[in-house]
Amino acid sequence: MGEHEPLGVSRETFEELRDEFTERRYDGLEYRHLSDGRRGLERGTVLIADTAVQGFPKVPRTLVIDPGVPDRFDGPIAVEEKLNGYNARIARVEGRTLAFTRSGIVCPYTTWLADGLGIEGFFEHNPEYALCGEVIGPENPYTAHDYPGVDSIAFRAFDVRDRETGEPLPVRERRDLCEEYGIPQTPLLGIHEPRETVRELPAIVEALDEEGREGVVMKSLDGAGQLKYTTSAAHRGDLAFAFSLPFDYGRDFVFRRLIREAFQSVEFEDSASTREERARALGEAILLSMTDAVETVESGGTVGERHTVRGDSGVLESLFEHLRDQGLTIEIEEDRREDGERVVTFLKRTQSTNDKIRTYLDGTIVRE
Amino acid sequence: MGEHEPLGVSRETFEELRDEFTERRYDGLEYRHLSDGRRGLERGTVLIADTAVQGFPKVPRTLVIDPGVPDRFDGPIAVEEKLNGYNARIARVEGRTLAFTRSGIVCPYTTWLADGLGIEGFFEHNPEYALCGEVIGPENPYTAHDYPGVDSIAFRAFDVRDRETGEPLPVRERRDLCEEYGIPQTPLLGIHEPRETVRELPAIVEALDEEGREGVVMKSLDGAGQLKYTTSAAHRGDLAFAFSLPFDYGRDFVFRRLIREAFQSVEFEDSASTREERARALGEAILLSMTDAVETVESGGTVGERHTVRGDSGVLESLFEHLRDQGLTIEIEEDRREDGERVVTFLKRTQSTNDKIRTYLDGTIVRE
Repeated sequence: MGEHEPLGVSRETFEELRDEFTERRYDGLEYRHLSDGRRGLERGTVLIADTAVQGFPKVPRTLVIDPGVPDRFDGPIAVEEKLNGYNARIARVEGRTLAFTRSGIVCPYTTWLADGLGIEGFFEHNPEYALCGEVIGPENPYTAHDYPGVDSIAFRAFDVRDRETGEPLPVRERRDLCEEYGIPQTPLLGIHEPRETVRELPAIVEALDEEGREGVVMKSLDGAGQLKYTTSAAHRGDLAFAFSLPFDYGRDFVFRRLIREAFQSVEFEDSASTREERARALGEAILLSMTDAVETVESGGTVGERHTVRGDSGVLESLFEHLRDQGLTIEIEEDRREDGERVVTFLKRTQSTNDKIRTYLDGTIVRE
Repeated sequence: MGEHEPLGVSRETFEELRDEFTERRYDGLEYRHLSDGRRGLERGTVLIADTAVQGFPKVPRTLVIDPGVPDRFDGPIAVEEKLNGYNARIARVEGRTLAFTRSGIVCPYTTWLADGLGIEGFFEHNPEYALCGEVIGPENPYTAHDYPGVDSIAFRAFDVRDRETGEPLPVRERRDLCEEYGIPQTPLLGIHEPRETVRELPAIVEALDEEGREGVVMKSLDGAGQLKYTTSAAHRGDLAFAFSLPFDYGRDFVFRRLIREAFQSVEFEDSASTREERARALGEAILLSMTDAVETVESGGTVGERHTVRGDSGVLESLFEHLRDQGLTIEIEEDRREDGERVVTFLKRTQSTNDKIRTYLDGTIVRE
């Protein structure tokens, strides 16, 4: 079989793309992945021997519910909660259950989590599917966020797709299938016609916002159309995170979130006091995160992304090796055993922020 | 005389730079200017016939008073107020008094203002000098800001330099010279040793901040060393301006001002409530400016930089022609006569912000 076949692209296209794939190895298994989307293949597309796993498509966003939502859908819309964690695709390849991150890298920690989900039956009957979802919870090596009832880390399915073509199952079929196999899912918040969604969404978003949740993903019932919209809490959370490491996060990352707040404030017709409250919370997310970082460096500390993970000791070692392989500097801050599991708190050291803050505190002149 | 001589660079360097100069014409006079600093020549350097006028050097900034200030000076420091307007150099060339903006363009409005300063005597005795200063006040075609006692527009000298070499006069000599010729100057806030400046500066900056003023420029007494430090009010003002036209102002412009606030809050040891107040004001500067812009476009209006200018009708026509020559779209919003002068309010239309806000309000999807 030609290497191009599982990807559904021509031999010629594949030859042009061949050099764009990065070769990696996971636990004795060789694979290749595409770090950026190209020529109709999604970012994160993986090749292992004769099997391809398509990357998860980027979900477009609207800054206004009306007319952003009705413009994009011409039939009923399933509104599901967008969870704040990291995107993982789980597939059964070469007899092994593997979990891939967004960019198509096999993550040992997520793979270990997937192994514990009890989804052998799912893949036995549906070997051609990729189970796509969000990995959430506070003990999370990438994006930690608290959710009620999630003490450590958990998987929530939001899609089932043909692993090679990337074709999604219809929403109801996917939800039924996950339920059948006991796979936890993202909450379904309703299925409405587009105009009804426009009416319902502000209250849904405000309720999610009050609980510090991220937002919604809207889908056409065939699963093909996707659109996201997020809460003020999500924007603020992202800003607080970015400004806790101000010299490591992109200016565009910050700018986009500020813009979202402005459009939401106008569309939600914030009262003067609500708008002032939104502004105050926004200012605090920005300034207090930065002053914390400056004070940490000033007092001799190190800033970075702090994470806690829990699990089998060997898996955690593989995770740290995996993160270091990607060029990250990992500092283990705490390493203990709890209830027979290893629990490690570590820091991903973000060099630019530590260096720049130190430099400016030392009185280095800014020429701008 | 070789063209390179007035610039103080070698013939070879000048030949390499020749193509970097832009040719322009002002009222029958041909001149060339350098839009970016290169090879030891400052941005804004001008050549008119055999005369050169050096650009005004960029003033470096420190994010922390201590040790930023003492590190840069080894003797007494003159602290002068940094005014919020636009930088102008006035020189007497080919028998005419001309005013150049930062980038070295002759501005007809500023030249008219300079003509009214009564500085013929100054140039008669000091033809080789360039008089450098800030043009301030509310009726200002570039950077409008209110100052007590300035109803329309005014000039405040902050430097006198050899126009060709750019060599500055010592601070006291410059201030005496300006006083002698009745030229209004930026306020001198004190002359202190470096350690004393470190002690005095926070109170000076806080007092300026309370009056909504911009900050200070510190100079070594020989005029050569320069360093600036700005108030929270200035940072907020810049942010409010940038976010009133969010898609036309650079992400870096915004980011730098946010960073300044964080370092100042830490160095000034803001109490928890002062820091919260700073955060709230910052958030309002950002969000309320953006929501205003979104609402203006939503209700069919146009956003842009709005300015009012007052003066001789022909001069104002020259100013508008001058601005249009630079690629700006000028919309005259109000044009009236008052006390024998023409008073025009105009909008510099900023296309990106108008277009992008309209696009997003129309529900255009964001792929990011």
